[in-house]
Amino acid sequence: MAGVEIERLIQLLAKLPGLGPRSARRAALMMLKKREAIMLPLAQAIEAAAVAIRTCGVCGNLDTADPCALCQDQARDRHAICVIEEVADLWALERSGAFRGRYHVLGGTLSAFQGVGPDDLSIEPLVARARDPEVREVILALNATVEGQTTAHFVADRLSGTGVAITYLAHGVPMGGELDYLDDGTLTAALRARRAIER
Amino acid sequence: MAGVEIERLIQLLAKLPGLGPRSARRAALMMLKKREAIMLPLAQAIEAAAVAIRTCGVCGNLDTADPCALCQDQARDRHAICVIEEVADLWALERSGAFRGRYHVLGGTLSAFQGVGPDDLSIEPLVARARDPEVREVILALNATVEGQTTAHFVADRLSGTGVAITYLAHGVPMGGELDYLDDGTLTAALRARRAIER
Repeated sequence: MAGVEIERLIQLLAKLPGLGPRSARRAALMMLKKREAIMLPLAQAIEAAAVAIRTCGVCGNLDTADPCALCQDQARDRHAICVIEEVADLWALERSGAFRGRYHVLGGTLSAFQGVGPDDLSIEPLVARARDPEVREVILALNATVEGQTTAHFVADRLSGTGVAITYLAHGVPMGGELDYLDDGTLTAALRARRAIER
Repeated sequence: MAGVEIERLIQLLAKLPGLGPRSARRAALMMLKKREAIMLPLAQAIEAAAVAIRTCGVCGNLDTADPCALCQDQARDRHAICVIEEVADLWALERSGAFRGRYHVLGGTLSAFQGVGPDDLSIEPLVARARDPEVREVILALNATVEGQTTAHFVADRLSGTGVAITYLAHGVPMGGELDYLDDGTLTAALRARRAIER
């Protein structure tokens, strides 16, 4: 329709999560309308990030430095490691500001269906880190999905010999959540973990 | 969180239509996981398209050639010009294969609210093209929105002195459409334009 270049651009854009063929076409046209403001800066930003960003050899975070800024930050608590599935989860926790320790990115969850075994995840490096006498607690902050919880049990099992405390995130009613809209599993978990009102 | 490079990448991705901040983060992480397969090729494709693609001086289409391949195609009907709002509409009509004439991209619709006047659209160049004695029909294929129809009326008015036949797309029930789900305007238009069954 408009030459090979634009076909190829649309094809590649359509591979990004959240963009289908239709929105990829819209994105390509929008870019071509704003070449100076968006199109060329985006090409440069992608290339700059591809070159500069590396995976932290300690925790699996993405950063320009290896070890990453979080691993190098001496102000952060060395006693706790928070285990997450993906870097996006690390970002979400950092946005919350609720955790000031170190992280460990597993790189996914165990999945027989997708052929992901223990060796495909960063489990052994986590066990090695947990053996550091400074580390006292490993928080398994995996998704509350079947895969996430299966993986959490497996990881907890592998950590059992290291002597660290192993904890999970609490399950319950999310802030702002309405009971009528919650699934049975969440309601059951929230009821079981009910707490006395503090006065 | 992961250096200036990734922040900037996410910021620019979030400006694309269809991507918000959250999906821009997901897209950035997905790219960083597939640097060779997607990230670097995408950067190159964006740059290649930005350099190679230009706006056709005749019809406003996007192509590597100016005049574009459609305008240069001698096999296409020179008697009919189909007027569309945006290049995306041209692509949609080309995918349908239902039109074999020439196009004219207006570049939007008149909008007092957004400060888009007649001089901001490619209306005078259309009038000039319509004066070509070879041109017999101008099809106003603008969106069936208030803005599209207002603009169509304005353009039809400007074309009235040229002697070409001015036509609109038919309004009615879309193929596969269920009456119960259609708006009143569409039902009214479909009823008014009703046709005798051909036997």
